[in-house]
This record gives sequence, structure tokens and C-alpha cells, in this order.
Amino acid sequence: MKKDVMKEHVVQMLQERGVSLDDIAELSWQLQAPYNNELTKQECRESVERVLEKREILYPVLTGLVIDKLAEEGKLPEPLLSVICRDEGLYGVDELLGLGITNIYGSVGLTSFGYLDKMKNGILGKMNQTQKNGGRVTTFLDDIVAALAAAASARLAHRGKAKKEQVM
Amino acid sequence: MKKDVMKEHVVQMLQERGVSLDDIAELSWQLQAPYNNELTKQECRESVERVLEKREILYPVLTGLVIDKLAEEGKLPEPLLSVICRDEGLYGVDELLGLGITNIYGSVGLTSFGYLDKMKNGILGKMNQTQKNGGRVTTFLDDIVAALAAAASARLAHRGKAKKEQVM
Amino acid sequence: MKKDVMKEHVVQMLQERGVSLDDIAELSWQLQAPYNNELTKQECRESVERVLEKREILYPVLTGLVIDKLAEEGKLPEPLLSVICRDEGLYGVDELLGLGITNIYGSVGLTSFGYLDKMKNGILGKMNQTQKNGGRVTTFLDDIVAALAAAASARLAHRGKAKKEQVM
Amino acid sequence: MKKDVMKEHVVQMLQERGVSLDDIAELSWQLQAPYNNELTKQECRESVERVLEKREILYPVLTGLVIDKLAEEGKLPEPLLSVICRDEGLYGVDELLGLGITNIYGSVGLTSFGYLDKMKNGILGKMNQTQKNGGRVTTFLDDIVAALAAAASARLAHRGKAKKEQVM
Repeated sequence: MKKDVMKEHVVQMLQERGVSLDDIAELSWQLQAPYNNELTKQECRESVERVLEKREILYPVLTGLVIDKLAEEGKLPEPLLSVICRDEGLYGVDELLGLGITNIYGSVGLTSFGYLDKMKNGILGKMNQTQKNGGRVTTFLDDIVAALAAAASARLAHRGKAKKEQVM
Repeated sequence: MKKDVMKEHVVQMLQERGVSLDDIAELSWQLQAPYNNELTKQECRESVERVLEKREILYPVLTGLVIDKLAEEGKLPEPLLSVICRDEGLYGVDELLGLGITNIYGSVGLTSFGYLDKMKNGILGKMNQTQKNGGRVTTFLDDIVAALAAAASARLAHRGKAKKEQVM
Repeated sequence: MKKDVMKEHVVQMLQERGVSLDDIAELSWQLQAPYNNELTKQECRESVERVLEKREILYPVLTGLVIDKLAEEGKLPEPLLSVICRDEGLYGVDELLGLGITNIYGSVGLTSFGYLDKMKNGILGKMNQTQKNGGRVTTFLDDIVAALAAAASARLAHRGKAKKEQVM
Repeated sequence: MKKDVMKEHVVQMLQERGVSLDDIAELSWQLQAPYNNELTKQECRESVERVLEKREILYPVLTGLVIDKLAEEGKLPEPLLSVICRDEGLYGVDELLGLGITNIYGSVGLTSFGYLDKMKNGILGKMNQTQKNGGRVTTFLDDIVAALAAAASARLAHRGKAKKEQVM
């Protein structure tokens, strides 16, 4: 599948799970705004778009979204099904995929990912509540969204630095 | 699920996919023997057993084995199904899980994992051939087996060092 | 150097930089207490001690502490000296070492590490202030302390799980 | 320091340690040629150049090269000095930096890095021999060179894929 078709597919899967690219851009803006007071949400949105054009990011995103969905539909075998449905704290594979996503922009996105994953800002908090209420399985989704926001933010940090240098 | 029950479950899943703990121990011995000429295959087998008693290792192993199986049975949605069935070289999620497994014994297992994954020694070569012949899906299996062997070998390296110190 | 001698050496280096094992245990307790209301600070302290008995953790800790010290004494060549002295946000090698430390207890410690590194709780906030005031170089130290606390906390999470299973 | 000045500085440091960008390109070509029989060494050389334009890669490269040099000049404190001078197998920080470098192009570069680090192809074998003969300290250098070659190769793999898609 071509990369742009896969991107479209992933964006639609995120949408079906209640996450828009603007939600991710909002998290990314919250992360990066303290360091750059001219940053607009539009720039963050564009950064999220660029991040989703990398195959090495699309694959772990796609994999995590599929596992969540299969879990929600009861289509995973036990004991994996229960582990994922109750978002077992020691599972860790969701964090591994998140790490794979943020790493593409260097290790500086790592702490932002960890921070978002723990603080459950914005859409992440809502997601978590939905899962606890027995609604949907978002075991991978929250890590994926946090990782994409952290990646988009790290990308902006690297670009901001490069831009400043050109001005100098 | 209790840890020892999960271990038993994972060992059985490996068996069903044609991999015994002795196969993994053999790879581990090949990795470690050049540095320790007294190392027996029995010690390697025991190291593999210990590695499979860690929950942080059992979870990625279990997840990878389940994805392979679902792919083989055609139970994953597209485009993920095709990506995994043809073991797409840029997929990378299999390596992410492998990395998560070897990391538990420090970064020294990392190069052994990469080496095995590339050289396709022993059972790894057979697996790969089976997949190419359209037999089974082993996209995650080969990384998992290589990572377990590398982890068991790194564990022995750390223990060997500790033992030598006690003698001194 | 024997492992226990190296541990002692690292503990002393931390002390010289103003960090006691109790400071790290305190951070670890803050991370883990919400999930375990019987957890004592003494248990956290013991977990920090165990974490510092692993060679794969002692090495990155030692390396980071040495780099900070050489930077403080102006003994690194440029441009690395300036990058480390001003704790350049895009440097990332400090986070890489932190990641190497937390990984030993699985990916679940990763988000705690990121969270601490961003929130600058307790001793981490003080450190950061000292560096900003031109006092000392703590570019690696804060990541090391956050990573050790996250590792000690992840270790307790895994053990707590194991203990509960034995009771059942 | 501006990014292009830092690149130049790093290239010169590599040169001083006996490694040219063509040496790295050669390793990269060996890795990638089996998958792409039209690949030229010139393309690999260009890929190495691009890889060295990323700040998130320049920083770990610079850090590793500086540590090797300080070790060679006896300017690191003990016990770190001895650990690095004898390229202690369990040290692992060199692999951590290598991992940080390859990760920028996704986890697919990981196995190539491990493979090169173990096989000691081309310049890597020579380096290793030099260190064993008591010549120079190349504890970080070999991992850095292997990681740069793996990164340049993974970058080409991603681009080759993208190019094929445009043709289709």
C-alpha cells in the first residue's frame, strides 16, 4: 500500500476511535508552546501531518490501533485479550510502540511522551475515562496519541533550532 | 494470569510454531561459547528458562506470537495483514518487540539480537525458508526467538562476570 | 572493578553532587504510592539499593556523572563543552542514558522517567535551579536520578504483582 | 554551533581517528546492495552525508568520539578509564549511543547495526585490531561507525520504497 493511502487509512482509524489530528496538534502545542511563544496550532497541525507521512511511524500506529480494535471485538485469544482489555499496567508493549514512534525524532521526544502518558492531558484523559467506564479499549490508543504529539513537538523543536540558525 | 501459567502457555505456543526451548538454547550457546569455553548447553537452556520467567519479556513474546497466528489465519484487517504476511522489510514492529525483550538484560544483548536476526542461524534459517515457501507466518517469531537467545546469552555474560568476581 | 565497589563509588559520586539514595527513594515512592498504599519509603530505599547492584545500570550512571563533572571543570573540548554546560534541549544523549537505565525493568518505567524529567519533582527541581543559577552542571544528573527512581519504582511494581499472585 | 559547522567538525574528528565518509559508505553499500542491485557507492556516500546533517545524530556521535579521545589521553577518572580502555564487553553505553543513532531511521536499522558490530566488516575489523594491539581507544568509534552505516542504509531502504511507489 502506498504511503499516502496508508496515512489516509490511519487518519480514518484514529477518527473512528474519536481522535482528530487537531486533538493531537493541541497536545503538541501544549508541549512546545512554553519554549516558543510564537507557535501556532496550525503549525502543530502541519507537524502532525508530516509525522504521519513516515512509514516507520505509520506501521506501529497501525499495529496498535488494530490490536485495540481486535481486543474490543473480543477477537484476541486469551490471556492476551484480558491483559489488553483491562489495560494491565505491566503490559508495556503499548509503551514500546510509543517509544518506536517518538524515537524517529531523537530521544528528546521521549520525556514528552512519558509526561503526556502519565498526565493524561486533554483527549488522553477522556480516553482513559471511557476505557474505565467499560466503553472502549484504548490500551494502545493513548500511547499512540501521546507519542504522535511528542513526535510532532520534537520535530518542531528541531526545526525551530534550524530556523534560528538561518537567521543568525 | 499467574506468571508461571503464562510461561507455560508461551512455551506451548512456541512449540506449536516449531520452536523448542532447546532450539533457543542452542542459539544462545553459539553466541556465548566464544567467550566462555566451559559453557554447557544445559546452562544455556536454564538461562532461557529464567528469561521466560519475567513478565516484561512474556508480554512482548505473547503479543508477537498472537499477531503471527492471526495473520496466518487471515484474521487481521488489511493493510496490516499483507504487510505481516509478506514480512515487509520496513515494518519494524517485530524489531521493536525484539528490542524490548533484549533490553531487559542491558544494551549488550542488542548486537547479538541484530546479528542473529541477520545471519538466520539454525532454526531461524529454517523458519525463514518456511515463510518464503508460503508455509507459515513467522514475521514476529524469528525476531522473538533471536531476542530470547540474545537475552539468555546476555544474562549469562552478566552472571559469568559476577561469578569470576566472587572467585577473585 | 568488582560490582559492589563500583556501587559504593557511584553512591559516593551521587553524594558529592548533592543526591542521597533517600532523595531517589522519595521520588520512587511518589511514583509508586498511588498504586500501592502500603508502600513504605524504606521499601523504596531498598529497591534503589537493588537497582544500583546491576552492572548494566552502574555503567551509564557512572558515564553520565563523569561527563557532568568534566563539563563543570571545563575539561571537555568544544563544542561539546558548551552544549552540555547550557543543557541544550536538543542534546538527547542524557535521555538516551536514562532510557538505558529504565529499560532494565521493562518499558513500564519509561513513562515515569519522562514524567519526572519533565515535572522536576523534589530534588530534580532544586538541581535544575542550581544549574540555571550557574552553579553546577547537572545535565546528566537529573536524567540519571529520574531514571533510577523510575527503575526502582518499576522494580517494585513487578514485585508487587508477583507477591499478590503468591497470596492468591 | 550551527549544524553544518558541527557536521564539518564531526567529519574531521572521524578523519583524525582514521575513518573517512567513504569507509562508512562502503559498509552501508554492503548492507543494502543485496536488496538493490542498482545501488551505487556514490548514493551511499550521499546518504551518509544526509545522516550527518541531523543534530539528533551529530550529538551522540560527537559525545562518543570525545569519550574515546579522553580515554586515549588518560583524561577520564577511574574506574571509567579502565572500563573504556579495555572495551569491557558489558559496558553497553557505546551500544546505547549506537541505538540512538540508528533509531532515527526506525527500528529496521537496528539489526544491521548489530550485525556490523558483531561481524566487524571492513574498517570495523581494522579498528578492533588496532585497539587490541594497544594502539588507540575505539570503544565508541566502532559502534558509531556501524550505527552511521546502518542509519545510511535504512535511510536508503525507506527512500527506495518511496521511489518505487512513485513509479507505480
